[in-house]
Amino acid sequence: MSYLSKISSPTLLIDESICRNNLERMSRKAQKHGMKLIPHFKTGQSKEIGKWAREYGIKEITVSSIKMANYFSGDSWDNIHIAFPFNPLEANTLDQLASKTRISVQLVNAEVTEILCNSLKNEVGFFIEIDAGYGRTGVEVSDFGTIEAILRKAKESSTLVFKGFYIHAGHTYYEKDIPKIYEETRLALNMLKNKYRTEYPNLVTRLGDTPGCSTMDDFGDIDEMGPGNFVFYDLTQERIGSCQKKDIAVALAAPVVDINKEKKTILVHAGGVHLSKDVLNEPDGSRNFGEIVLLNDQGWIFLSEHSYVKSISQEHGIIQASDELIEKTKVGDLLGILPVHSCMTADCMKSYLSLDGQWVDHAEGN
Amino acid sequence: MSYLSKISSPTLLIDESICRNNLERMSRKAQKHGMKLIPHFKTGQSKEIGKWAREYGIKEITVSSIKMANYFSGDSWDNIHIAFPFNPLEANTLDQLASKTRISVQLVNAEVTEILCNSLKNEVGFFIEIDAGYGRTGVEVSDFGTIEAILRKAKESSTLVFKGFYIHAGHTYYEKDIPKIYEETRLALNMLKNKYRTEYPNLVTRLGDTPGCSTMDDFGDIDEMGPGNFVFYDLTQERIGSCQKKDIAVALAAPVVDINKEKKTILVHAGGVHLSKDVLNEPDGSRNFGEIVLLNDQGWIFLSEHSYVKSISQEHGIIQASDELIEKTKVGDLLGILPVHSCMTADCMKSYLSLDGQWVDHAEGN
Repeated sequence: MSYLSKISSPTLLIDESICRNNLERMSRKAQKHGMKLIPHFKTGQSKEIGKWAREYGIKEITVSSIKMANYFSGDSWDNIHIAFPFNPLEANTLDQLASKTRISVQLVNAEVTEILCNSLKNEVGFFIEIDAGYGRTGVEVSDFGTIEAILRKAKESSTLVFKGFYIHAGHTYYEKDIPKIYEETRLALNMLKNKYRTEYPNLVTRLGDTPGCSTMDDFGDIDEMGPGNFVFYDLTQERIGSCQKKDIAVALAAPVVDINKEKKTILVHAGGVHLSKDVLNEPDGSRNFGEIVLLNDQGWIFLSEHSYVKSISQEHGIIQASDELIEKTKVGDLLGILPVHSCMTADCMKSYLSLDGQWVDHAEGN
Repeated sequence: MSYLSKISSPTLLIDESICRNNLERMSRKAQKHGMKLIPHFKTGQSKEIGKWAREYGIKEITVSSIKMANYFSGDSWDNIHIAFPFNPLEANTLDQLASKTRISVQLVNAEVTEILCNSLKNEVGFFIEIDAGYGRTGVEVSDFGTIEAILRKAKESSTLVFKGFYIHAGHTYYEKDIPKIYEETRLALNMLKNKYRTEYPNLVTRLGDTPGCSTMDDFGDIDEMGPGNFVFYDLTQERIGSCQKKDIAVALAAPVVDINKEKKTILVHAGGVHLSKDVLNEPDGSRNFGEIVLLNDQGWIFLSEHSYVKSISQEHGIIQASDELIEKTKVGDLLGILPVHSCMTADCMKSYLSLDGQWVDHAEGN
């Protein structure tokens, strides 16, 4: 029986073979460059996808909150890294988690380092997050005062163990010159490694953004990579050039509830609570909340003419449809929507249906 | 013990007294105009808030999906209305639900009407949704062909019962001239009522949008109102003029994880998975993802200088802070964030913490 027969309301589909290809490709790339791949599981948030990842030699993962770390604990990961400046209100929860799972966190200031020094009974690793130009989070690369305040403070603790430096070069999402961003990132990480390796001979450097990890072929001496989105990819990544549309591993199945042949619009049950409100601004000024694909028993196929979700509200999605799509579609059909931002769509939907009709888990809650 | 002691990660706060004031005010307004208030519970999605609503004479509710209708069934509502063009793939689920709860749906075409005629064993009411200018969903007000095709088809069924006409004048969110929109809405609903009341003497007319229901004082002969957002309000509604900031009943409590005194930014754990990515574009070109308030044991208080979330990603929120806020805040504090779109924020968070430290329910899933 087709997976399609299980769907009567908005449902996030996952194509396991595409997802496995994405995992395998990035895993090989890391291997080729002598790097360890520690994928960021904020995208999939799934134990089942974790199983697939382990088949490609992945032994450690990254997450973005302690709740997510809890979700994956006990799943035989060598280490779970929480790639978010640590929230000191969760110090005790961290300590409990560290009593059963190897955990590392990210630190960006001495205040939180001190709180952890005073509260951790169990060993926790830490990376110092560095800002080398993105400007969102992290210690500025030249701010040795803060870096050394963190290291000095951590030395007072026997449980807080320095692991290395981490950069999320998130500006690869917005700026076209990824090679230039990566040159700066490599320079920053190498400078820090050289400066501190005498004192910390085992320190490692890590970067983690899907555009860079997907498109670059020069990682210099960087030891580890932690991209997240690559496991699914999405329209944003396709626009950047990180992937092709055929590499997108998830699509929202959306029920068609009305068709307006004059306006060439199709109303689907697929709104902001399903897709999130991430949007691509098209060169012609239109806004694109997702691209339409046709669903069949094997998965999804592309349309020869572009059709897209032109507007959404909480539950409604309005598709601007090509003649081809208007022709093919009737009320009661399901259409597929490739998401603009797959991490957010997966977080909205909280489960996946595989193309062989199995439900795949996603962590609950935030 | 303060509710604040229960919070270590992003948590949506609800001020019950503000929420009750909003319910009471709208309930009185409806009463004053001889209208029935049938609030849209897609905003709160909460049985507990439903209990509060019943104390103000509210006996029927509106929802946006059959899953949400299921959530509220059995909670002693006289009727649950699903205000979304009905998804025919859920016809059997609807029939099951209608065997235990009084339900009504919205129809916009003859195809779905026919499917329901053929599948319903239990009585279900229906409204015809009319588009009088918003352009999102509904039968165009002058499209009597479709209206009559729906009515003719429904007559073949003994279980599908016509209730009336429904307009969601959602353009009140975007266009300044709400009185003009309401004049058109009233004219459309009155024209339809006059045209069909001989054949359907009990038919009613309903409108439902928070900006109109909050700001207008002339509803003509319209029988019912179904606004949703008013139960919480938010920054979008404040901008439109539907409410004042003091009427906003929910705020996200967000842990402070880093402060940059030079840039005057504060990093909080509060991203798109908590607030949603709805945004207000400010006159000066900046983007506002939420306004900062200070939390205390009694709830939240406003700052004399404006501070706001200037950018968000999946889990990160960056606050552009006033001098006052930078001065008052330290790492490990909690700050409050008034949401841009409270319906979406509540749907992201899936629970509320009241100011007396009780958890308030929110429906799971989409």
